[in-house]
Amino acid sequence: MFDEYLARRYRTTTRPKKEHYLVKDSAAIVGIGATEFSKDSGRSELQMVCEAVKAAVDDAGLQMEEIDGFVRFEMDYTDEMHICSSLGIPKLTYFAECGWGGGASCSTIVHAAAAIAAGVAECIVCYRGMNEASGRRYGRIPGTPSIMTAPRDHFGSILPFGHCTPPGWVAMFASRYLHEFDATAEDLAWVSVVCREHANRNPNAIFYDRPLTVQECVEARMIIEPLRLYDCCVDTDGAVAIIVASAEKAKKLKQKPAYIVGATQGNATEGELMTSYYRPVISGLPEAWYTGQELWRVTGAIPSDVNVAQFYDAFSPLIPMQLEEYGFCDRGKGMDFCRGGDRIRLGGELPCNTSGSHLSEAYLHGMNLIAEAVRQIRGTSTAQVKNAELSLVTGGLGIPTSAILLRN
Amino acid sequence: MFDEYLARRYRTTTRPKKEHYLVKDSAAIVGIGATEFSKDSGRSELQMVCEAVKAAVDDAGLQMEEIDGFVRFEMDYTDEMHICSSLGIPKLTYFAECGWGGGASCSTIVHAAAAIAAGVAECIVCYRGMNEASGRRYGRIPGTPSIMTAPRDHFGSILPFGHCTPPGWVAMFASRYLHEFDATAEDLAWVSVVCREHANRNPNAIFYDRPLTVQECVEARMIIEPLRLYDCCVDTDGAVAIIVASAEKAKKLKQKPAYIVGATQGNATEGELMTSYYRPVISGLPEAWYTGQELWRVTGAIPSDVNVAQFYDAFSPLIPMQLEEYGFCDRGKGMDFCRGGDRIRLGGELPCNTSGSHLSEAYLHGMNLIAEAVRQIRGTSTAQVKNAELSLVTGGLGIPTSAILLRN
Repeated sequence: MFDEYLARRYRTTTRPKKEHYLVKDSAAIVGIGATEFSKDSGRSELQMVCEAVKAAVDDAGLQMEEIDGFVRFEMDYTDEMHICSSLGIPKLTYFAECGWGGGASCSTIVHAAAAIAAGVAECIVCYRGMNEASGRRYGRIPGTPSIMTAPRDHFGSILPFGHCTPPGWVAMFASRYLHEFDATAEDLAWVSVVCREHANRNPNAIFYDRPLTVQECVEARMIIEPLRLYDCCVDTDGAVAIIVASAEKAKKLKQKPAYIVGATQGNATEGELMTSYYRPVISGLPEAWYTGQELWRVTGAIPSDVNVAQFYDAFSPLIPMQLEEYGFCDRGKGMDFCRGGDRIRLGGELPCNTSGSHLSEAYLHGMNLIAEAVRQIRGTSTAQVKNAELSLVTGGLGIPTSAILLRN
Repeated sequence: MFDEYLARRYRTTTRPKKEHYLVKDSAAIVGIGATEFSKDSGRSELQMVCEAVKAAVDDAGLQMEEIDGFVRFEMDYTDEMHICSSLGIPKLTYFAECGWGGGASCSTIVHAAAAIAAGVAECIVCYRGMNEASGRRYGRIPGTPSIMTAPRDHFGSILPFGHCTPPGWVAMFASRYLHEFDATAEDLAWVSVVCREHANRNPNAIFYDRPLTVQECVEARMIIEPLRLYDCCVDTDGAVAIIVASAEKAKKLKQKPAYIVGATQGNATEGELMTSYYRPVISGLPEAWYTGQELWRVTGAIPSDVNVAQFYDAFSPLIPMQLEEYGFCDRGKGMDFCRGGDRIRLGGELPCNTSGSHLSEAYLHGMNLIAEAVRQIRGTSTAQVKNAELSLVTGGLGIPTSAILLRN
């Protein structure tokens, strides 16, 4: 496996083989909705999710009773039945859940698109709502850590030592990545700075009105080495809903459809929940590589076809790492791609995370990234890439993950 | 809603409209596997699930590396990544979870079949493993009941009063059902007696060697009125795995394929997790009715086409209730259908639960019922219905649920 791992060609430049894949163009994202993003919503997740679903239904020009499916995060505190009761949705023919934390974000679209392509449902809501700032913060070790009682064997050997939170888990492999490719804190800071630039254009972003410099990044307090404050996503209260409908239905609705060219999931061997430290190499994200390979295979696209990308950025090192794993640059060259910011900012070679994303817009477990990818297709982003044709979104890292490619 | 509810025609005799539905015949169950069913497995769920998956892969004549998808119960303690690591499955392109307890059983097949029809994966394992006898029993109130801390609002108003377990939850609506249709304990006993007769033919059933009489049923100790001991499923340690593959692949494999004609899910308004007591009528199972309506609609079949049925039977009253809801008899006639046992036993009008099912074979959250439905198609059941062509399975009740129809 070690050899296979190292032998992987990181740059995907040849067009892959297409096969029987019905998702392609048979489903589209037709509606997006969200609450405000805040540090203290003052209301329940259920209420926020209902607000987001209603906003998405209105955005699409749908009637509530046209919704016939739901896909949710396993981790979500809100379920589809309470949403249906609250919003008056009479009947569902499809409901599914996606595991693996933020790895679920684009998985929701995989499931919805497959169900629609197969004719199981016609109009499916994917959502996430959380009071992750005012409620239980993932970065804080809870008094009675429920995850410590989870019967995932490997956690028993790390949680008792205080290695209990996502920043710690990611710091392990991020350290190795930065070390292996001689990246400095200044290099890394460019990722956060560019996301902040984009957030500064987006009135809905939590950091809309706060510019950020490289200097501020490297001087910010250390959370867990090598991750400083601005390398971490912004804890957020809020909800986002995304509506997927059949391509046929999409044509009759209010918005320009964002067609789903491909929606894929991927895992890799020796995987643990954000703690896959027993692999021969830990400076990469093999799940993302497999997910990307499958995405290029089923869509027939290659990375250079993509006009704009929303990379899952719970932590800043994940962006250069994904640039490699999804094949936008060679192994070890992700940091070069980000340094100085010119290639990843609006106007650059591959504008990334154009809403400000998790680092500066809001942390909604990837669902706000999907909404932004849709806006890029519609032409309504506050950091709009001119004539964006292909819009990429990726899911959470260090876990089984997912990605989608949208087109106009 | 009250009128709509009462106006429902319980008997489905007209052939429903078919629409775009690609699942039909594009996927098949190609492998089934299980551990022994016991009261004390002496090993972990992960180990049991791996054994069941390996047995199913061998049964199908597949290689382990051909598996490219997993669908699991949200509630399962085992996840697909640890199974892949344990069994050497290199890569998945699909993984999903199903919620709602036993309502998930046939949902796993819905998801797998949709993913296969859409071309997202080709060979998907659905599984369930639990030490429900030697580990945490659902019928026992745990010391620190995790479900009581779950943020499902309505539970906050019933759990503190000790209304904490499935027998209690089901007793509420079962009481009303029996009262409304003047059914006695003797009437009800026939359900358990027939399941036991079938189990007595099945060497893998926990109650293989223990016959049961109506007299024993009505004299057994009361669990929660009206449910006596033999009205409740048998707590079991074990695991079951079911493999779904594309119809094309199925043709090349070892077993006669059990084609998936239809796989549907359904919910109903005002639904809560097994405690939907605020509906105008609580003597029915509207989720099952909707799931059945959708099944007949997408398959074009009607109940009288079905040759053999495995109804989810966590508790005995659920069988007569489902006979009504799935349209095999009129409203209020389910108990008549079961009384004396002649119509539901092997050789009868609709042989039901031919392995002994949850009441007498094992309680594997519905997955053992799917395995039995497949055996009926293959012609290998220990209570084989001659020339069974259409084989029905239903999912858990009092919750959003699911059903599948298989054909040979």
